[in-house]
Amino acid sequence: MAARAIYTAVVCTAALLLAVVPPSAGLSLDTVREFLTREEDTIVFCLIERARYPLNRPAYDPIHLGDGGGAGPGHRLNASFAELFIRESEAVQSKAGRYQSLQEIPFFAYRVPFTLAPPYNFTRELYPAAAFVNVNDAIWSVYFNELLPLLAKNGDDGNYAVTVDSDLACLQVLSRRINYGRYVAEVKFRGDQQTYTSLIQAKDRDALMKLLTSEAQEDVVKRRVEKKATVFGQSITSDGPIETGVNNSSGTNFKVDPSVVYKLYDQWVIPLTKQVEVEYLLHRFD
Amino acid sequence: MAARAIYTAVVCTAALLLAVVPPSAGLSLDTVREFLTREEDTIVFCLIERARYPLNRPAYDPIHLGDGGGAGPGHRLNASFAELFIRESEAVQSKAGRYQSLQEIPFFAYRVPFTLAPPYNFTRELYPAAAFVNVNDAIWSVYFNELLPLLAKNGDDGNYAVTVDSDLACLQVLSRRINYGRYVAEVKFRGDQQTYTSLIQAKDRDALMKLLTSEAQEDVVKRRVEKKATVFGQSITSDGPIETGVNNSSGTNFKVDPSVVYKLYDQWVIPLTKQVEVEYLLHRFD
Repeated sequence: MAARAIYTAVVCTAALLLAVVPPSAGLSLDTVREFLTREEDTIVFCLIERARYPLNRPAYDPIHLGDGGGAGPGHRLNASFAELFIRESEAVQSKAGRYQSLQEIPFFAYRVPFTLAPPYNFTRELYPAAAFVNVNDAIWSVYFNELLPLLAKNGDDGNYAVTVDSDLACLQVLSRRINYGRYVAEVKFRGDQQTYTSLIQAKDRDALMKLLTSEAQEDVVKRRVEKKATVFGQSITSDGPIETGVNNSSGTNFKVDPSVVYKLYDQWVIPLTKQVEVEYLLHRFD
Repeated sequence: MAARAIYTAVVCTAALLLAVVPPSAGLSLDTVREFLTREEDTIVFCLIERARYPLNRPAYDPIHLGDGGGAGPGHRLNASFAELFIRESEAVQSKAGRYQSLQEIPFFAYRVPFTLAPPYNFTRELYPAAAFVNVNDAIWSVYFNELLPLLAKNGDDGNYAVTVDSDLACLQVLSRRINYGRYVAEVKFRGDQQTYTSLIQAKDRDALMKLLTSEAQEDVVKRRVEKKATVFGQSITSDGPIETGVNNSSGTNFKVDPSVVYKLYDQWVIPLTKQVEVEYLLHRFD
């Protein structure tokens, strides 16, 4: 997706133009943690919703659009329904100003005027020249190749638009959550500028990664999201007691297997977030 | 919204063309109840997500788009950002084939080719000439005028696109849930054709409404959705016990006040669903 490279360039330019705006003082370790904890609920809700639908494989198979298409004469486009749907949806959301907030980063790039959105003066909490950092390519790949087969049962009910719309919701919240590592890094940097500055100047990735890692805290997060999947994914009756389902290890009674949500955080969300944190810090003096 | 009348006409025509297709035998009272119960979870999730954002009033104020716009020369368009965003999003979803499934009904009408969607042969479980019945106009009005002020706190964070995208998710699931009354009515009709036929032929709305009403069953549903709001809207920690919050009557500890969800079902979802059921039945012999 070459479009992403263009997007990165556009954002870089925009970030340089914004360099005169001082970072907001509203960011703290508490507000960052609160945001990340709340995002967990949204992520679990989105996964549960996607798991309502079968895999619906035809939505992900590459389709030929013939000569021309959006790629100019002589080109053949080779994209899936899912990719085309997400591109068009992001274009509408871009026009509506979704990406004016640096918290939101599209998977595909669009440069359209914000004709629809009422104006709003967003605070700029990130260091502008590092704000472009994101791992959307990795998130896209992990979501479709690793996570989706664990979420959705085999089958085809034809509801491709609804299904892919729920994929987009998952992708958007995962992107916002993981790329929020930029905010995490900014807060940590401000909390101990001396240590971070020397490691950044030495370009010492390994030491930065070590400094950013708290296995105890990560363990709390992983157990919490697993528990959220058991609570939010249970079947509720109007009378009976609320089932915690904690003793059920097979995951068959839940709308999404809690161990899949644990794995999502353990193998992808937390490592990718730390990758974003390190990359952001390495651009913190650009 | 005159576009809806056009849509209704289009669907009516399509329904007549489909009249040769026999209704599917897959529909039963059990599958209908299972669908409606599962939709409750989605509705509660969507309300919780909308409640994350402040009211963001500028997204709902009418904006002037100047002469021309989509209404042709000489016209001034007077629509809100929310309405424009939802129109554009529905246009993409329509192009992607969302409304090929009769379970999904758009708030605005579009006649665009389904260029993106892989083909799928949907079963037709509704009586074709009655399938057009819907109360989307009422749902739109209830959502923005009654429900939204109960959900969202006052405030403006500028995230209009994300906010209205979550409005759209709420509207879509409420529309699907309430207009599913057509399926409920079809199942009930098939279960007691003789009684229903005589009431339909007599155009006896009151008797139909009475026949479709089970206060005991409705009470179960209302208490269940209230409980879902307490369970899904609580704060989960990785260790402590799962809080049911059932003793908390103020609703302040929940992401959405459970009494608002009770009220939503009591005053709007259940009555509107029954209105759909009656209207569907009155067209059952068209």
